[in-house]
Amino acid sequence: MNQKEVVLGVDIGGTNTAFGYVDRDGNLLAEAVMPTEAHRPAEEFFARLHTEAENLFASKINQLKLVGIGLGAPNGNYYKGTIEQPPNLSWKYVDVVATLKKWYTIPVVLTNDANAAALGEQLFGAAKGMKDFIVITLGTGLGSGIVANGELIYGHDGFAGEIGHTIVDPNGRHCGCGRRGCLETYASASGICRTVEELLKAPAPPSELRALDPKNITSKRIFEAAQHGDTLALEAFDLTGKYLGMKLADSVAHTSPEAIILFGGLAAAGDFIFTPTKKYMEQFLLNIFKNKVRLLPSGLPKGNSAILGAAALIWKELLKK
Amino acid sequence: MNQKEVVLGVDIGGTNTAFGYVDRDGNLLAEAVMPTEAHRPAEEFFARLHTEAENLFASKINQLKLVGIGLGAPNGNYYKGTIEQPPNLSWKYVDVVATLKKWYTIPVVLTNDANAAALGEQLFGAAKGMKDFIVITLGTGLGSGIVANGELIYGHDGFAGEIGHTIVDPNGRHCGCGRRGCLETYASASGICRTVEELLKAPAPPSELRALDPKNITSKRIFEAAQHGDTLALEAFDLTGKYLGMKLADSVAHTSPEAIILFGGLAAAGDFIFTPTKKYMEQFLLNIFKNKVRLLPSGLPKGNSAILGAAALIWKELLKK
Repeated sequence: MNQKEVVLGVDIGGTNTAFGYVDRDGNLLAEAVMPTEAHRPAEEFFARLHTEAENLFASKINQLKLVGIGLGAPNGNYYKGTIEQPPNLSWKYVDVVATLKKWYTIPVVLTNDANAAALGEQLFGAAKGMKDFIVITLGTGLGSGIVANGELIYGHDGFAGEIGHTIVDPNGRHCGCGRRGCLETYASASGICRTVEELLKAPAPPSELRALDPKNITSKRIFEAAQHGDTLALEAFDLTGKYLGMKLADSVAHTSPEAIILFGGLAAAGDFIFTPTKKYMEQFLLNIFKNKVRLLPSGLPKGNSAILGAAALIWKELLKK
Repeated sequence: MNQKEVVLGVDIGGTNTAFGYVDRDGNLLAEAVMPTEAHRPAEEFFARLHTEAENLFASKINQLKLVGIGLGAPNGNYYKGTIEQPPNLSWKYVDVVATLKKWYTIPVVLTNDANAAALGEQLFGAAKGMKDFIVITLGTGLGSGIVANGELIYGHDGFAGEIGHTIVDPNGRHCGCGRRGCLETYASASGICRTVEELLKAPAPPSELRALDPKNITSKRIFEAAQHGDTLALEAFDLTGKYLGMKLADSVAHTSPEAIILFGGLAAAGDFIFTPTKKYMEQFLLNIFKNKVRLLPSGLPKGNSAILGAAALIWKELLKK
């Protein structure tokens, strides 16, 4: 019998990088976290990653066969194997695949974190067996990975799936991308904080959030207020779901997915975000799409979902062959 | 050597149905048109289509081998082979593939007209060799066919690609679909007429269109006025391009296509529609997508493009095997 095979999944974040060894069935056999230290050169980071990953392998799972490496990173480009102008890292341009090829002869594949999340859901999570679905990651910003005909849509340049930068209102909120009214300025952890900030300008309704220093208003704090039945917090979730649902209706008109999976920090608010998003999405859907698209939570184990996504990326690649 | 192979391409329209025999290289070897007579039963229509197609075959190209049939029709569903609730036909539900199987044992495939147009461009037209592109058909309404990873996106239910029903403004113009603010109420032959109607309510600018009975204002007439340098007509094209360009920027954020092809009646206005659409699309594009997406006219011969699209649909199917 063949030696059992594993892949290395790596999630590069602005602060920390998580990595681990994952088998074909999505079992995470060993994992570790290291600081990204993105202010230091990228070369140094990857040398450190290699050493730490080798140590983890040697100590935990040396009886298995490493067959590939998958990475999720901000602005990771699948076609070029590069990270370019990542929003939260100081690296300008890194040829990730070429760098790792110094140490590894096995296949190495890279994409952005939302795309990796989508593949994770397809192989190991809520989208098992689905050919057409969308994953929306609701973190500080809004990322997305779109799967159609069973394949992730990378687009011509590898940068497809930027639903967070579709436009809600061309005269709307200023976005970090330099434009105005992008969906992620409304539907994200930072977006809901901006919504609360706006709602607090009116004298009513009363809210426990009024007592806070505006700097201390976080999406977590808004979620807690909503759990206490706070009218203003509930209104903020309703508005967030309205913007998100309206734009998801546009996304459905593009690719007609079987399901949309909400993933990440803000999705953890559960019904507070799912109920209004579903309500407004249905309201804005073209008739032929109504009551067809399921809105689902992630099916990946919390905490390890990013590693599993990166692992799914390389498993999918290996299974093609 | 094998006998030369042809397919039958059929474009079912509200008034007329065009059909013809097309070889692997996109040569239309014989063609004909017959009235659709959509007020009569669908069964009758398909029996007539079969007879007329057989007659055309016998008279013109009986030395070739017929290997498949492709059809483009309003609300044609690729997965089910059916036409359901077509907007301009009285037929409620027709199982097209099952009906044609009475007479033919060769493969029969069906989709909607915009999807057929996209496949036509990919096999024989402006999108040759492209794996990621979008075709927008600007007729009475706005249809679209989206190709990603080389494959047409049908979506979970076969109804993907409804960019005409993405929402420009939730409080905007009433749409035939029952909602408000759909893109096709702005960017289509009927949409530009509504824009002119609105512009004519203001006392300025002077315009040759003011002399017309409102019922006689057509997109063709607006195009002619624009050719004469009519300020109001030019403004109507600018606004049409603005709405279209803004929503195409959203489409690019979904699938990052290499090109967007404008197809159909209103696209024949050339620079009058291409220039503002391109300008506003670039303005609304996320930085990473700017100056990457080509806006192209159809590369299919005018008049026969719909037959070639339907033929491309079945050729693509046959080539998969």
